[in-house]
Amino acid sequence: MAAAATTLRLLKPLSSAAASLLVPLNNPATNRSVAPLLLFSSSAVSRHHRRFCNVVSASVSSGEATKAEPIELEKGAKIREFRRKLKIVDIKGGVDEGLDRLGETLVVRGWVRTLRAQSSVTFIEVNDGSCLSNMQCVMSSDADGYDQVESGVISTGASVWIQGTVVASQGSKQKVELKVDKLVTVGVSDPSFPIQKKRVSREFLRTKAHLRPRTNTFGAVARVRNALAYATHKFFKENGFLWLSSPIITASDCEGAGEQFCVTTLFSNPSEAVHSPVNAIPTTQDGSIDWSKDFFGKPAFLTVSGQLNAEIYATALTDVYTFGPTFRAENSNTSRHLAEFWMIEPELAFADLEDDMACATAYLQYVVKYILENCKEDMDFFNTWIEKGIIDRLSDVVEKKVVQLTYTDAVELLLKAKKKFEFPVTWGCDLQSEHERYITEQVFGGCPVIVRDYPKDIKAFYMRQNDDGRTVAAMDMLVPRIGELIGGSQREERLAYLEQRLDDLKLNKESYWWYLDLRRYGSVPHAGFGLGFERLVQFATGVDNIRDAIPFPRAPGSADF
Amino acid sequence: MAAAATTLRLLKPLSSAAASLLVPLNNPATNRSVAPLLLFSSSAVSRHHRRFCNVVSASVSSGEATKAEPIELEKGAKIREFRRKLKIVDIKGGVDEGLDRLGETLVVRGWVRTLRAQSSVTFIEVNDGSCLSNMQCVMSSDADGYDQVESGVISTGASVWIQGTVVASQGSKQKVELKVDKLVTVGVSDPSFPIQKKRVSREFLRTKAHLRPRTNTFGAVARVRNALAYATHKFFKENGFLWLSSPIITASDCEGAGEQFCVTTLFSNPSEAVHSPVNAIPTTQDGSIDWSKDFFGKPAFLTVSGQLNAEIYATALTDVYTFGPTFRAENSNTSRHLAEFWMIEPELAFADLEDDMACATAYLQYVVKYILENCKEDMDFFNTWIEKGIIDRLSDVVEKKVVQLTYTDAVELLLKAKKKFEFPVTWGCDLQSEHERYITEQVFGGCPVIVRDYPKDIKAFYMRQNDDGRTVAAMDMLVPRIGELIGGSQREERLAYLEQRLDDLKLNKESYWWYLDLRRYGSVPHAGFGLGFERLVQFATGVDNIRDAIPFPRAPGSADF
Repeated sequence: MAAAATTLRLLKPLSSAAASLLVPLNNPATNRSVAPLLLFSSSAVSRHHRRFCNVVSASVSSGEATKAEPIELEKGAKIREFRRKLKIVDIKGGVDEGLDRLGETLVVRGWVRTLRAQSSVTFIEVNDGSCLSNMQCVMSSDADGYDQVESGVISTGASVWIQGTVVASQGSKQKVELKVDKLVTVGVSDPSFPIQKKRVSREFLRTKAHLRPRTNTFGAVARVRNALAYATHKFFKENGFLWLSSPIITASDCEGAGEQFCVTTLFSNPSEAVHSPVNAIPTTQDGSIDWSKDFFGKPAFLTVSGQLNAEIYATALTDVYTFGPTFRAENSNTSRHLAEFWMIEPELAFADLEDDMACATAYLQYVVKYILENCKEDMDFFNTWIEKGIIDRLSDVVEKKVVQLTYTDAVELLLKAKKKFEFPVTWGCDLQSEHERYITEQVFGGCPVIVRDYPKDIKAFYMRQNDDGRTVAAMDMLVPRIGELIGGSQREERLAYLEQRLDDLKLNKESYWWYLDLRRYGSVPHAGFGLGFERLVQFATGVDNIRDAIPFPRAPGSADF
Repeated sequence: MAAAATTLRLLKPLSSAAASLLVPLNNPATNRSVAPLLLFSSSAVSRHHRRFCNVVSASVSSGEATKAEPIELEKGAKIREFRRKLKIVDIKGGVDEGLDRLGETLVVRGWVRTLRAQSSVTFIEVNDGSCLSNMQCVMSSDADGYDQVESGVISTGASVWIQGTVVASQGSKQKVELKVDKLVTVGVSDPSFPIQKKRVSREFLRTKAHLRPRTNTFGAVARVRNALAYATHKFFKENGFLWLSSPIITASDCEGAGEQFCVTTLFSNPSEAVHSPVNAIPTTQDGSIDWSKDFFGKPAFLTVSGQLNAEIYATALTDVYTFGPTFRAENSNTSRHLAEFWMIEPELAFADLEDDMACATAYLQYVVKYILENCKEDMDFFNTWIEKGIIDRLSDVVEKKVVQLTYTDAVELLLKAKKKFEFPVTWGCDLQSEHERYITEQVFGGCPVIVRDYPKDIKAFYMRQNDDGRTVAAMDMLVPRIGELIGGSQREERLAYLEQRLDDLKLNKESYWWYLDLRRYGSVPHAGFGLGFERLVQFATGVDNIRDAIPFPRAPGSADF
């Protein structure tokens, strides 16, 4: 074996400045009863610190121990042990809000939110995104690195590495603060940093989508969005569902309704796309685009729903769910629509509409409860700054019963309403957002409401026909502020009924061959629903505009970042 | 309030056949010490059973209790309680393999895999996809519904609802079986059902992507894929990472390399797409496509990576990961490439290449350990039928150390190798799959190996330059059978270095304005990696062809289902 001849190494050579920062810290998150930290003398540090360095060596930045391991020439070098980074949430997020760590020496890494210089001490608020709270770092003039404060290097937006001791805070806003032993500037912030202390509008921040996660609001939205996603996976796992990746690109003819985006490679390379001569597109003799030359050999589109694919897996694995992006090429520039959004689509086999409504209700209550319990600080923030009363509204969802009524009954309610609607109501009409919100907000006092058994003519072909012959086993869950949050149905599992429906709608049965096959071979009653994840984020955070509920919103004319 | 006038109902009217099946079962999964089940007398059932019914009423199918609740006219009707369905894995998946349930009466719902009629009893193997195991149902001629067996309605592929008693099995293949009290045909299976007992090729099954999840192999792949996804979320959650949805459509100019799919609405509706006259495409005066008329106002593409977006969030929230679809329009029809695949891309702030390698190693070991512990039955199946020795291979990954060596050392190893490579090796060349597999399979005996510090000229612009000036802090993790499973790097966080690199590569700095901003405002050392999820599924299941590692593979000429 040739390995013996190779020179292997564990660590990259370090510059002297970097080496000086190699503090063999024990990570307090994993091992808190450690010996006092070995600190450099201030003279050693001042010899090496680089006052205007943009970035210090990476080797220090994780704060992990980097002591050398014996190098095994025959076997290659080892990999460092991976350890969870100590973050501000680990310090301040517990029930004691940090008081359990009094006296500990530890390291905080993050971005400066504000800096206030007082006569004797300087307060530096540092945030690392792990929670809403900053770590208040109190620095006196004798601490290591104070010269960087004096020189103005430490400004809003700068990144810092701060080592200090946890002490009780004199302030009323937090229980503990960090008495700074040593500060290192990791990266300075140019004075043009657009997110200064004063509040900026969310419209403005949409143009700074690369910096907005550094604000309180977007940090909180990101954390709650993450929690909702995790709770989604957890709910379905606990209930025996398998996650399924439904396809994004589809050339299947049975995707059905909605404006779809076309996916193509007929326009050469991205780099050349701006100047794409139309006459370079391959055509057939009649001047049509020659799709046989395209990547998939026929027109292909971005999916509008994973449901039909989920039905395939539900009729093999019983209970599945998708959680993936879906697309609509609707030209609607509203605060409720996105061209690209994430959908959660469970599909349950051996299930009817009652099971479907039960699942949707249990799901919504589960994820809402999860964030109320696990994102308390962020939810308090939304309650104070974004939507007053949101915690009560969400608590109602968890605690009160969700109710159901038929579409026919809902129409009756709307016809008797004293409220004047923009869109008039008649049996057979699609319910508009104003109707949906009236039902959930006014009639049922803020409870989520499920409306079921819609007229078949306003619903999709695959929904199961009810015995009355004019309605289908569809259901929409309506919630305050949003209107429809969830839409679902029992699927038509009877081959003859489904074929008849395709015929009635003049749809081409050949295109649906595989979908019909599911009814040909061991068909089962099945049902499912779809939930727009960004609508859920809006519902759970109170943000008005759906573009603030997704990190990088896509809408007509807008696909930057 | 008008609600008083509405007529609300809990249950849809049931046909008499359906009503006869409304067994008020207590769900054994949630409440196992219940009173004996109320069963219908066989005479009552035989009056109602519908021998050739394609599908029985859905109301019975979930097997949940459906007793009427008092209807609250003022408040709408209640929603049924949601309960986890009892599945075969719940019966047979425990340590006792079902022996703890001896004597219990319960219901199994699923699809018939095989049916063997013997003189006195009939064996029906039922699978519900919750695990590899079938439930062996033993039916004697006096059981309810035996006439359906006699008449041949129950064939491979049919769906059934079977109620029976758990008894010890005489066979050696299972500990328990179900003594059938009552069988209901839910959906018959047409004799053309293409997946009969005999083994069919995976190539053939790719043309039946809507039925292949009903096979042992694809059921097992789906369960292990689900487990890998769940373990991924769990690993990152436990380590303080937030999940981030990176955008799918992007008009950003800095996506960089790779053949990308164009996303457009310039070709009217999907329904009309097949006949799209080229002259209907809007053009500018010089005959180029007029992108200002397109949905996003400029050329837009499907993402090739969420990394740059993940960097945005890492430099605000410290540790994040993406898990979403990415795309390559490469015209490669191989067993290793997909046009659409899922990527996991963690991004760590305040981290260097050592941290990155540590994270990648810990991640891989975590998810592999998770499936070895949680998917034992499926892994045994792969070990027997798909890749002999796979369990040992994966156990090695968990137990043995991952080693690292530099690219320079790797090249030296390859140059000294006795093996003749198709692609010759010189310092500066990109490593081919044959080289990668030689290193991990031959030199390091099947251990995963990380090769680091690649020549900068063969790596992307964003990778951090090493002090030697000719290599970058990149790393690839190589594993047996697959070659490169993970690719990552420390990112160039120094503004001046990054701008220089863009200049050297003649890239337009204006396009990268927001990416450069991350280095302008509080830059931090950061690093991350990308892992192709389907490669991981291949690695973890042993399936040869990547098209069998994703439910609906997309490749040149192929985007059906």
